Amino acid sequence: MTTLPVFERVALIGLGLIGSSIAHAARRGGLAGEIVGYARSAETRETAARLGIVDRVEDSASGAVAGADCVILCIPVGAIGTVTAEIADALAPGAILSDVGSVKASVIAQAQPHLRADVQLIPAHPVAGTEQSGPESGFAELFDRRWCILTPLPENDPEAVAKLRRFWEGLGSMVDVMDAAHHDRVLAVTSHVPHLIAYSIVGTASDLESVAESEVVKYSASGFRDFTRIAASDPTMWRDVFLHNKEATLEVLGRVTEDLFALQRAIRWGDGDALFERFTETRAIRRGIVEAGQDTASPNFGREKPPQK
Amino acid sequence: MTTLPVFERVALIGLGLIGSSIAHAARRGGLAGEIVGYARSAETRETAARLGIVDRVEDSASGAVAGADCVILCIPVGAIGTVTAEIADALAPGAILSDVGSVKASVIAQAQPHLRADVQLIPAHPVAGTEQSGPESGFAELFDRRWCILTPLPENDPEAVAKLRRFWEGLGSMVDVMDAAHHDRVLAVTSHVPHLIAYSIVGTASDLESVAESEVVKYSASGFRDFTRIAASDPTMWRDVFLHNKEATLEVLGRVTEDLFALQRAIRWGDGDALFERFTETRAIRRGIVEAGQDTASPNFGREKPPQK
Repeated sequence: MTTLPVFERVALIGLGLIGSSIAHAARRGGLAGEIVGYARSAETRETAARLGIVDRVEDSASGAVAGADCVILCIPVGAIGTVTAEIADALAPGAILSDVGSVKASVIAQAQPHLRADVQLIPAHPVAGTEQSGPESGFAELFDRRWCILTPLPENDPEAVAKLRRFWEGLGSMVDVMDAAHHDRVLAVTSHVPHLIAYSIVGTASDLESVAESEVVKYSASGFRDFTRIAASDPTMWRDVFLHNKEATLEVLGRVTEDLFALQRAIRWGDGDALFERFTETRAIRRGIVEAGQDTASPNFGREKPPQK
Repeated sequence: MTTLPVFERVALIGLGLIGSSIAHAARRGGLAGEIVGYARSAETRETAARLGIVDRVEDSASGAVAGADCVILCIPVGAIGTVTAEIADALAPGAILSDVGSVKASVIAQAQPHLRADVQLIPAHPVAGTEQSGPESGFAELFDRRWCILTPLPENDPEAVAKLRRFWEGLGSMVDVMDAAHHDRVLAVTSHVPHLIAYSIVGTASDLESVAESEVVKYSASGFRDFTRIAASDPTMWRDVFLHNKEATLEVLGRVTEDLFALQRAIRWGDGDALFERFTETRAIRRGIVEAGQDTASPNFGREKPPQK
């Protein structure tokens, strides 16, 4: 953990789960001389000020970014263009402008046209989250041992990229670097399409005539429940993700439905071997995830086998 | 909890996760005078004997069921017909024959033709499980506060049904009663289709050319991981579930893919309102599940927000 602050002043635009967690973690690590915050909603600003989440809450985005050597947009991906246009003139010379969005190519396309050449646009995506939202949901440990992906631009100053990396490492993350287009394909597979499918199946279940919603709730522990967790994520954020990572999402979704139809056909024709083969392959991936420390092997459905005597 | 045993002798055919957990929980509750076990694999029988999971391990299914007033088949649904044929002659007069399968109409269709009229076939489905399998994975708490669904037949002796209910309540379960066809529709929604989709998406992810499997594993915490848990379930059991609950599974699956295509179309045409609307509806279901005590509201991805000071 660094002892000197990485940045003199960090401005957080947006103080929801991610913004407030960055504030908590930056304080824990002593990463910023000062943390300034702004949120569009007066209620959020009031809550953030009352809880002391940041050192200073400003009433405008431009006011918050003035004099900051690092600005992080913690807002839905769909708002990046508008907010960047709003703050562009107020950004300090040589400032780093970053974000936390789940898609990256669109963030670059939206932000870049508004920026002076001396501003370092370095998009970032902390792969961490909970199903909670709002300024009260943040906590300092959110990024610990989670990946944060930076998608720097070829024209970035390497020193600025190194500083942002140090900042995220200080927040607790492991940092990875890749180009924005590849990021968007990887996340389409690991995050965006899973969320879309979870939303879809949970929505379908609530619409069925032959099975009551109360029964779905009652017996949800048998598998369905695992989907409801991610289908409870923030609707605005996810609407924007799909609108801004359209191509990669549609491509992966096409593959998933194709494979799903193959399984459906195997069921219809009673092809047990095809089913068994597919169901065996998928166990290996689960093992890989457990071995990579991204989850535990403890019994599922949120229940722990008690310690053996 | 009962003080007198509910049954004099319980025979468990199959000693995997469910069979061994029934043995542990029946002992904990003092529900059986004696517990006899049988497993098809010599290795499982040896393990069960070594660990003392049951009072006595028999070398044949017929030997195990002889003299038992309750026999529970803890085997894949596809094996119900064969095993019932094998044990039918050895069943004690008036014995209860039950099972633990995730589909129920097929169990009745497979078992009934082999049984004498005095045997009480009372199918059961404990809605509980982990991603583990084998005799060493069982534990006494598996059924605590979980639902067990009984699907009795019209011709059942009500007293036999009441005894089996007492047994499951003694194992820790809450007991519900419904007809087999309705059970199969409910479970298609809450369990079978979610598992099929999880298997499908995990399989697809491992087949993509543009994203490496190592990247899928690395970034799985962003949503994908929730699917891998249930996609690591026992392949034999799940093959049998789909082959034996074909109609309800295909019907629900048809609805899910239809709804998924509607979301896909909304993404393609940039219809943010349609996405937002769907994503908002699904939050209500999640709340219902949390309120029903079937899961907690704690931050997802297996990480807990530390207690607030």
